[in-house]
Amino acid sequence: MWPDRRFLELVSIDLPIIQAPMAGANDSTMVVEVCNAGGLGSLPCAMLDTETVRSEICIIRKRTNQPFNLNFFCHTPTEAERNSDKAWKQRLAPYYEECGLDITALISAVSREPFNEEMCELVEEYKPEVISFHFGLPNPALLSRVRAAGCKILSSATTVEEARYLEEQGCDAIIAQGNEAGGHRGMFLSDSIASQPGTFALVPQVADAVSVPVIAAGGISDARGIAAAFALGASAVQIGTAYLFTPESLISDLHRSALNADGNDETMLTNVFSGKPARGLINRVMREVGPMSELAPAFPTAGGALAPLKAHAEAIGSADFSSLWSGQSAKLCVEMGARELTERLCELALKRIKRLNLIES
Amino acid sequence: MWPDRRFLELVSIDLPIIQAPMAGANDSTMVVEVCNAGGLGSLPCAMLDTETVRSEICIIRKRTNQPFNLNFFCHTPTEAERNSDKAWKQRLAPYYEECGLDITALISAVSREPFNEEMCELVEEYKPEVISFHFGLPNPALLSRVRAAGCKILSSATTVEEARYLEEQGCDAIIAQGNEAGGHRGMFLSDSIASQPGTFALVPQVADAVSVPVIAAGGISDARGIAAAFALGASAVQIGTAYLFTPESLISDLHRSALNADGNDETMLTNVFSGKPARGLINRVMREVGPMSELAPAFPTAGGALAPLKAHAEAIGSADFSSLWSGQSAKLCVEMGARELTERLCELALKRIKRLNLIES
Repeated sequence: MWPDRRFLELVSIDLPIIQAPMAGANDSTMVVEVCNAGGLGSLPCAMLDTETVRSEICIIRKRTNQPFNLNFFCHTPTEAERNSDKAWKQRLAPYYEECGLDITALISAVSREPFNEEMCELVEEYKPEVISFHFGLPNPALLSRVRAAGCKILSSATTVEEARYLEEQGCDAIIAQGNEAGGHRGMFLSDSIASQPGTFALVPQVADAVSVPVIAAGGISDARGIAAAFALGASAVQIGTAYLFTPESLISDLHRSALNADGNDETMLTNVFSGKPARGLINRVMREVGPMSELAPAFPTAGGALAPLKAHAEAIGSADFSSLWSGQSAKLCVEMGARELTERLCELALKRIKRLNLIES
Repeated sequence: MWPDRRFLELVSIDLPIIQAPMAGANDSTMVVEVCNAGGLGSLPCAMLDTETVRSEICIIRKRTNQPFNLNFFCHTPTEAERNSDKAWKQRLAPYYEECGLDITALISAVSREPFNEEMCELVEEYKPEVISFHFGLPNPALLSRVRAAGCKILSSATTVEEARYLEEQGCDAIIAQGNEAGGHRGMFLSDSIASQPGTFALVPQVADAVSVPVIAAGGISDARGIAAAFALGASAVQIGTAYLFTPESLISDLHRSALNADGNDETMLTNVFSGKPARGLINRVMREVGPMSELAPAFPTAGGALAPLKAHAEAIGSADFSSLWSGQSAKLCVEMGARELTERLCELALKRIKRLNLIES
């Protein structure tokens, strides 16, 4: 039925949708629903400790016998640099004053950990069918162990150069993440957001450059996008934003309202929430401090100084300091359960693929 | 044969490709070849005087009896502001010194004119089948006269809001110009390049928002892109960069070499060449002065001060100060004649559309 079955066969699933791992926005519940629909559910592990990852894997294994994906970040962890940290706090000081908060009481907390020895041991223990990485790949020793555990390895490319690199390192499939995508760019060989190609330009060029299956990501929220991704040469799609609209999504009510608000569909890339560029709905802190700020400390430490402001604002119903991650196609999303969404998107995409050919003049 | 024939029927053509009007890069020769292939050739008039437009129309009418498109800009012409002009010259002064040129001898020349009374009279005289506008629409009185002349009216939208506006003003079809597109954004209700959607996100959202046919533009350089555009809900595509590779293209050898150069496929939006954001291959002046400079005078005057530097550099084989317009999919382009290109892209796109459905498991 699907025009390209390479990814389906690679990971032994029925439907060519990867539910994008969304750190902080989905847990095992969504993973299970997507896997049971026939897609590939993804558990984002970057903000979880190993014990939580272990218990989440156990839940997944208990509730589905389908393949699933564990996702890890591969950034180089940075010690908060004293100087940039100071300048950043200075920049945010007026907001602390406005909110009646004490900036000197702030304790920096690193909220995202890269893939490491401990996580690798978990992978070796549980052998999930798929491991996807973001921001490149872990060091060769760790990568070899993941491979030896029998996991299929995926990572995201935001340029043709990154796609070639990932194939050379032995990735089994490559996620071509276009500029439209919500959340963090997976970029790792370049930090030039101004030159990152859109999905429409990136997918066919990556498909030409590598021989492994390509997964299109960025701006895909409905059946038309899935059909178009196959037309461009993709073997599957990765969808994030549409899953934020499901009841399984863990986003705040404020985030959910912002996604549903009329006339509020403009997104931008911003580094104010983490230190690395990520796409979200435009809010006050992005507008006033960013969207890209040279003062933001290195990933992932920038968000630490925003945390008290976020907590204070959210308590009074304001999303002024919250990351409202979203891709550029939020307006195409429809609220329904993660399982139904997965099934329905694929059903409509197949119809669309057929209809492209059937409506003849 | 085509899944959506609305645009084909609207303008009475056989193939759903509009050759993008590229001011300075194509004249009647390319228009005629595209029209005779069955697509819609476009004559860019923004940099031509009325007598040249007249003689170009005569050539087109003589060599084809197919519908064609005249394209006009609709910017509000700005008197060069003295202050910004001074700061801009100051910024460029070191380059004048480097090239041994006298910046005080510089005479500002406005190189692009908006649609006006004289051009409207020409339109009324020759009644081309299609008129496309860029940067919005002309004033209602001029627009009514174009409509009364029987021309179908097109304009570009870079957001859903712009698409709705254009439909309300009576456009017969709307070009959804995604962020990937080369050359000038058609944006006119917003100047926020950071939030401009990519083609993949824009086309289906515009298709949902308006009832007139939608033409996808931006990042489309091969048959896969055409098939994908139809999948997303487009009734036709507008293609620019691929036509820069034809022998009919008027671009310089330097521009042609840059487009063909290996490993030089990164583009950015820049305002240094005109004052408005336009996408081109990255070169020295973009890197050093831009890509976006707050000092650049208002469109279209910014380019005046670069002209002597460009002439000097090009004479010694350097494209350091030349605009190298390109979309994000230059690497997908293949050199061939404009007529053959139009026919071949459509032939392969139809095959691809069919194949999407035929390869069953």
